[in-house]
Amino acid sequence: VPAFPTTVSDRWNIIGGVPNGGYLLALCVRALAATLPHPDPLVVAASFLRPGAPGPADVQTELVRRGRRIATGEARLVQDGKEVVRALGSFADLAAANGRTVVLGEPPRLPPPDECETLDTSASPPEISIVNRYEYRFAEPPGWTRGQPSGDPRHEFWLRFSDGRPVDALTLPLVVDAAAPAVLELGEAGSSTVELTVHLRGRPEPGWLACRMSTRHLIDGFHEEDFEVWDETGRLVAQSRQLALLS
Amino acid sequence: VPAFPTTVSDRWNIIGGVPNGGYLLALCVRALAATLPHPDPLVVAASFLRPGAPGPADVQTELVRRGRRIATGEARLVQDGKEVVRALGSFADLAAANGRTVVLGEPPRLPPPDECETLDTSASPPEISIVNRYEYRFAEPPGWTRGQPSGDPRHEFWLRFSDGRPVDALTLPLVVDAAAPAVLELGEAGSSTVELTVHLRGRPEPGWLACRMSTRHLIDGFHEEDFEVWDETGRLVAQSRQLALLS
Repeated sequence: VPAFPTTVSDRWNIIGGVPNGGYLLALCVRALAATLPHPDPLVVAASFLRPGAPGPADVQTELVRRGRRIATGEARLVQDGKEVVRALGSFADLAAANGRTVVLGEPPRLPPPDECETLDTSASPPEISIVNRYEYRFAEPPGWTRGQPSGDPRHEFWLRFSDGRPVDALTLPLVVDAAAPAVLELGEAGSSTVELTVHLRGRPEPGWLACRMSTRHLIDGFHEEDFEVWDETGRLVAQSRQLALLS
Repeated sequence: VPAFPTTVSDRWNIIGGVPNGGYLLALCVRALAATLPHPDPLVVAASFLRPGAPGPADVQTELVRRGRRIATGEARLVQDGKEVVRALGSFADLAAANGRTVVLGEPPRLPPPDECETLDTSASPPEISIVNRYEYRFAEPPGWTRGQPSGDPRHEFWLRFSDGRPVDALTLPLVVDAAAPAVLELGEAGSSTVELTVHLRGRPEPGWLACRMSTRHLIDGFHEEDFEVWDETGRLVAQSRQLALLS
């Protein structure tokens, strides 16, 4: 079993000072990329077993099946001998995919980024370091940011890394978990991801990413959160869904 | 590693005479249910590695993490020494979940089952034995069944097991893969599942299930297929998404 020693940074922390799940998943994806013969994470499904912590970690990987077009592997992120995340991932070469295209969905309807409002995260608790990694721009910021949740947990916004680094195929699984949970718009304090599945649909062009997130079914405390990412040229590049539990 | 010997029946075959992916997943889910301490498959994510075949199989399971409310395991369905499906599953007791409920989605708008048309599957090739396991009722059958695909791969219909057995939590993962692919409505011949993730949102009441399926993004041959299952009392009981490749 190949093991990739790594360090979980404290720069991607969410509420409670624990690392963001999408960040832990991105560490798994990077190790899978080094294990599998194809370059792009076509689909990755991750179970979040327990909270991680900033500090050392090992990502153990396994090549499960090597196919000509698609290869599948498994990654386990382990800290202090305990498994924190287990992820199954299938990789392919998206540049070599050449089948039919029919897109019936539409990108988010947003004014250009320069005409949108940058989300002011200065009042965010300092333990939530992840907000400094991204810049978010909204046509109208969510109600919960003004203490007035609207009851409709559905948002569209622009996003990019605040340091100007372009988002690529290996960092898209991070982006789909980059925003505050949609259930904040229902007046909830937060929620914990049980499982997150990401589909990569294309390599993003450099620039802003147009995001659409929503929760439509909160049932007995469990809810889905759907996330779409479209690049600045109007192409869908990622689609994800997570199952989460209100905290 | 516990191993559950089983037989893959030939009664759930799809095109090509291979077993349906949802059926193979249901075999994994049954073995996970025998491995994990909680009764309901809350979320299951499966990678389809190679086609299965009717005949003997082993399902090997692993208890990955036992939590008080949620337990996670892994199952591998193996035939002839080759891994066919790998599934990660988290189980819980849905009857014990007691958090908040806010449902913003709506069940399919269908006339009552008795006023719908039963799908005539008599012209289906005999190798496709799975059509005899289900009864499907449509307000209006899909265009592809008349050789006239509409170009809009979105369907709503009633479904039940043809032998009258009620669908329960352990068989819901089978139901979300029970219909012909939505892309047939784009004039395509079929498609192969790469990955399928199912969320269980409730235990279904006995009776008909109202299903909604759609594909909105076919890109370079890859597409998602979304599936919702609502029970006859109007409660969402399952939500799934798969990533598939046109065949």
